This record gives sequence, structure tokens and C-alpha cells, in this order.
Amino acid sequence: MTAITFVPDGTSASPTGFRAGATYAGIKTYGDGKLDLAILVSDRDCDVAATFTRNRLRSAAIDVNEERLTAGHWTGRGVVVNAGCANSSTGEQGLVDGRRMCELAEDAAGAPAGSFFVGSTGVIGHFLPMDKIAAGVRNVRPTREGGMDFARAIMTTDLRPKFGAVRFGPYTLGGSCKGSGMIHPNMATMLCYLTTDAPVEAAFLRSTLSAAVDRTFNLVSVDGDTSPSDTVMLFANGAAGGETITAGTDMALAFAEAVEVLCTHLAKEIARDGEGATKLLEVTITGAASDTEARQLVREMTTSYLLKSAVHGADPNWGRIVAVIGRSTVRITEPKVTVTLCGTRVFEAGRPTDHDPAAVAEAMHGDTVTITCDLGVGEGSATGWGCDLSAEYVSINADYHT
Amino acid sequence: MTAITFVPDGTSASPTGFRAGATYAGIKTYGDGKLDLAILVSDRDCDVAATFTRNRLRSAAIDVNEERLTAGHWTGRGVVVNAGCANSSTGEQGLVDGRRMCELAEDAAGAPAGSFFVGSTGVIGHFLPMDKIAAGVRNVRPTREGGMDFARAIMTTDLRPKFGAVRFGPYTLGGSCKGSGMIHPNMATMLCYLTTDAPVEAAFLRSTLSAAVDRTFNLVSVDGDTSPSDTVMLFANGAAGGETITAGTDMALAFAEAVEVLCTHLAKEIARDGEGATKLLEVTITGAASDTEARQLVREMTTSYLLKSAVHGADPNWGRIVAVIGRSTVRITEPKVTVTLCGTRVFEAGRPTDHDPAAVAEAMHGDTVTITCDLGVGEGSATGWGCDLSAEYVSINADYHT
Repeated sequence: MTAITFVPDGTSASPTGFRAGATYAGIKTYGDGKLDLAILVSDRDCDVAATFTRNRLRSAAIDVNEERLTAGHWTGRGVVVNAGCANSSTGEQGLVDGRRMCELAEDAAGAPAGSFFVGSTGVIGHFLPMDKIAAGVRNVRPTREGGMDFARAIMTTDLRPKFGAVRFGPYTLGGSCKGSGMIHPNMATMLCYLTTDAPVEAAFLRSTLSAAVDRTFNLVSVDGDTSPSDTVMLFANGAAGGETITAGTDMALAFAEAVEVLCTHLAKEIARDGEGATKLLEVTITGAASDTEARQLVREMTTSYLLKSAVHGADPNWGRIVAVIGRSTVRITEPKVTVTLCGTRVFEAGRPTDHDPAAVAEAMHGDTVTITCDLGVGEGSATGWGCDLSAEYVSINADYHT
Repeated sequence: MTAITFVPDGTSASPTGFRAGATYAGIKTYGDGKLDLAILVSDRDCDVAATFTRNRLRSAAIDVNEERLTAGHWTGRGVVVNAGCANSSTGEQGLVDGRRMCELAEDAAGAPAGSFFVGSTGVIGHFLPMDKIAAGVRNVRPTREGGMDFARAIMTTDLRPKFGAVRFGPYTLGGSCKGSGMIHPNMATMLCYLTTDAPVEAAFLRSTLSAAVDRTFNLVSVDGDTSPSDTVMLFANGAAGGETITAGTDMALAFAEAVEVLCTHLAKEIARDGEGATKLLEVTITGAASDTEARQLVREMTTSYLLKSAVHGADPNWGRIVAVIGRSTVRITEPKVTVTLCGTRVFEAGRPTDHDPAAVAEAMHGDTVTITCDLGVGEGSATGWGCDLSAEYVSINADYHT
């Protein structure tokens, strides 16, 4: 088994052949002198995998990326991302602007036409300020050290940049993401860009990313609202050499594990930095009829107002957990359902156990609250992440006026 | 068309032949001297219709009611309700206690064995204090004027009692409900008891209640968590005489409309009194592929964290409304989707309209915020109710410790 190890201060520019950088183009109007325009580029062609939002009312950036992926046969060089304007609900003009933004970045980076993708996050219903973007793109100087700037530039109301990199065998996988930020009048867009210098066979690259996203980012919830812009992209440039990694090999297993480890890290970073969050909520469902049902229940748990409130108050409220299981449509064997809260079994055989609520409450005061439920039906399982619901969340999302 | 008119100060004891009353039995431990045990009784046998929670982990009271409805062929005399203990997650003992509570009320009211039903709301995982209930039941003196006491006694953390009555032709329909209250560690249980002196054919009584509940209480959401105890019951004693009302007659139409009007009134009262609520949110979906899809989207709207936060802040945030439509699975004709917020069209043809956000924000400062969305697909429609998400909601549900 190939070991997976984290790279200290690793970013999306850590893998060989990738560079990143950012500038302040004046798009993000809140804050002063924050970075808001970023470029991530490979010095050679990459195979590209991507997953996009399932929201039907999508940003123009998503449509532009899909048309470029198709035309370019799922290859490319890099991505240009702005924060401060989501280019969503912008109609035909949004498509024209998104394509133009790619071309500007290709010119600046000396990359082939059609090889860049685009990401936009921020206010929706407004057109991209193309003059500022054109000037800004020319100011970006991607370097091997620029991964941290990239991570900062794609933030909206995120409180901290989110990045990481892991080594697996001779290869590196890096990435950065943003999420759970909110700017009027938009949604908590999640953007994630992953890079690797491993040579990965194109179809395997895509299936690996899809599977990892299902088990990581798709199991994160801050508030249950998907955005028109959610994006995860993975660029593989093969710069570290070696044989092409295909399904069924040892290195394929290592690659898949590396992707899941890094995506899990980034997903938890998003949950922990959820708007107003003071705690990470980690929910594990076991004994479900299928992994799919386990994932469904994880999401129902991490989006429950009552459960998220109880987590915020460190209230060992097994009743709210049981209520979510009860209202869900996932199959259960009722007398076999068990609930474990921060390591203490609190519910089994249809009744609360004889536990000490004060001790459980004490455990819930930590920065991570874990809930494990066994449904007593089958072998399906899943783990997902959310955060507590705080008055600060309401304040962030209510006390903003157009 | 028979006119439906509200009865001033009408309650569940307004229809002929019904009496109600309550006492303080010492079950509700918060507050001083609050009523917490209530009886509603008819002086003659009633046909009974009922709908219960869909949560699979149900309170013993629900199980007891179902066994009594079946055994009694959907007839009965009344209901005994306590607040302060939900008799949920109480196993076999809970069933024994629930049945005993019915018997105690039947004895006290001089009603036949098997003719009473039971409701319990409050803390879960605790057994009913049967001594207090036995003593309390003997203290209740149901009267024609006792409907308000009944409405007060079934409250948990509700801020105000919820009741009403309407006249249709020679008949009266009354009712009271509680909901959106929360006591550790339980759920926002909704209980509703309706009464009428009209003689209604049993099957028609049940189908009418089901249809009305689907269009009213099932379209109310404070936080999306159903409780193990949710109940709506309708007692028809025929005391006002006349021909039995059967489907297809003019009086049947009047009765169905009366039930829907009163349930709508009570449902809106619940939404408006939602925990921490400062505003009523009324969402209407038109142009859906079916009424079912319209109802689904109503519920997705009224449970959205982002939308509820925007309503709280009177933020004319059409982007959050559009995002919910986009992430929903209901069918839409995308270019035809329109969004109207407090009377102003804010979104159409995939773009925000040229509206004045400040004027819409001003309208949203009222105590009711209305959202109307047309999906441009078909003839399906629905209206439902929710409330805003406030810091107070979080405080109510987080700052309680076991």
C-alpha cells in the first residue's frame, strides 16, 4: 500500500509543472486591497476532470466550462477565477463575458486557445466588469509559490483560505477551495481546483473524481442550498513522469485514496468555516440498506435546524437525532437503531440509555461534535460534515440590505 | 354558495354539544401555574377523522389512538391532552400509560370505555407522571366556555393560544391547535383538534380532513423537522341536526370549504408563532406541472436557511429564491420562470427585472412577506406558510442544556 502523506503548506501549485498567482482587480468591493482575480496554470497540457452544480439555474461560467470541456476533449491548461461577481443570471451576455475571460487568461499565460476554464463567485444578477478583469489578468504573475495567493483570491466571505497537498509515491496532488461564503444576493458557492503531476488515464481520472466528490464535497452541508456555480475540477499534467495510471493497478488505488484524502480535508475545512460556525459536525451512518441511503441520512442530519441548534448549544439532545431518523425515508430496523453522541451511546432499543447527559454535554463543548447512528438494516455507510447553527449565521445572512 | 364566516372568539367548544376544560396538573415544569392538562368532550358520539405524523419513530399516544380508532370504527367522544411530556420513546410502558390516560378521562367525563383519544406533547424519553395525570383529570370541568382554557393548556413554548371557529349554513366548525413550541429534548410538535356539530358521513369526513391537511398544515414549516406526535383530529357529533352531509352536495362543498378555511387560519397562526419568528412567510407556487410539485417547492422554499434569513433581514434577495427553484427537482420551463416578492416582479426571462430593491425591502418590513413564483410548465399550484429565521430561533433551540 502506498502511503499518503500531507505536504507542509502544500497548495494547488505544489505538484510539478503548476504555477498560480493572483491580483486585486477591483471586483470585490467589500474589504480593501483583497485579492480577487486568480490564475492557475500548468506548463503542459492536462487531462481534466470536473463536476458541476446540479442546480438547474446555473452560472454562465459553468456553461462556458462545459462547452470548452466538450470541444477540448477534456483537456486543458488552467483556470482563471474571479471573486466578487458570480456571472449568474446574466443571460447571453454572461456567456460572451465568460468566454472572453478565458481568452484573456490564455493570452496572458501564453496558453493555447480553448485551454482555459473559468470560475466566478460572488454577487449574482450582475455582469462581469470586463475592463477590470482584462486589466487584472495582465497583472497576474503565476509562480510556484503562488498557491496561497490563489487560495486567498477565490475567497468570498470565507474567514480563511483552504488548501492542501498530499504525496503518494513519486507524485503530488494539490488543491484549494472556497466555500460557505455569502455575498448578496447569492448562495454559498463552493469552488475547488485540484492539480496533480501524476499521469492519469483520462477516464480513470474522471471516475475517481466523481467517486471522491460523492463521498466528500457532496456530503458537506452548511445550509442545504446549492449554488449555481458549484465546481470541482482536477487537472493532471503528468509532469512527474512514469507510466500512465489506469484502473486496477496499485498506483491507481493510491491515486484514488490521495484524491479522497485531500477532498476530505478540504471538505472538512469548508464545513468548519461555514458561515457563523463554531463547531464541525461529523455524522457517520452505519448499518444502512445502502451507501446511498446512508448518504441521504447524513445530509438530512447535517441540514436539520433543530440538530444544528442543539450542536451549537452543546445540548446532548438525542431526541432531535432520533426525530431526523424517523422523518427520513431511509430504511431502518426500528428496535435496532442506535445513536452515539461524542462517543457515548445515548439511544438504543427504542429508549434513551442510562447515560450521563452532563458528561455528553461536556464532550460536545469541543470544536468537533461526532454523531454515529447504526440503522440495523444492512452494510451501507457514509460520513459527512456540517456545522452548528448560530445566531451569527442568521446575522451574516439577514443583516445585509440591498 | 354557502358563506363561511368566522365566529368571534370561537373555539373548539363553539359547536353545539361540545365542552372543554383544563387544569394545572404539575406536568409542565417551566412557568408557574400554567394549564397543562385538557379535555375536549362531546355529549354524544362523534364520527372521528384523524391524520397522524409520518415520522416512523412515533409517540405512544399515536399508537394508542390508532388502535382505538380501529377498535371503535372511527367513532369517539373526546380527547385528553397533556403538555410537558410527549410520552415518546417510552416503549411498552408508554402504551400502557396512554391507554390508562384515556380510561381516566372517560371515567371523569362519564363517557363510554374506548371513546376517548389521547394527545401528549413535551419532553421525550420520559414516562408520563400518571399520579399527577390521574389527579388532574378529576379536576377538569369541561364547559361550553372552556375552549380557551383548552387552547392554552395544550401549548408548550407557543407564545399565544391558537383557536378559531367558522359558521357554514346552520353549522359551526371549531378548533384549536398548538405548534412550533419546543421543550427539551423534543420536536416542534403540532397538535390540532377540530369539532363540528354538523352530521357528516364518516368516509366524507375523513377524505375532507385529509385533503384540507394536505393543503394547510402539511404546507406549514417552521424548521422542517416533523415530530413523533403530530396530530390533527376532527370530531363531528351531528348535534345541530339536519341531513347527513355526503360528498357531492352543496352542503358538502360548504363543509369542505369551512374545514379548509379554519385549517388555513390555524396553520398560519402556527407559522406566525414559529419559534423566534418575527414575520409570516407566505409562498405561492403557480404554473407547476402538478399540485404535488407545487407543494414540494413550497416546502423547499419555507425550509431554506438562506431564504428564511433573507426574509428576517427584509432583504429583497431574489437570488436565494431562484437558487431554491434551481436546486429543486420540480419541473420548470426555465425562461418562463417568474418571481414576485411582496407584489413586485423581481425576476423573469432568466434575469432580474429593472425593479427598485429599496421599495421591495420596504414592503418586506411588514409582518407578512409574500413570494409568488410561476414555473411556466402547467396548472399546478399551492400556497404554504413559514416564518423567518432569527437569532432568537437559534437561542431558543441552542441555549438549553440538559
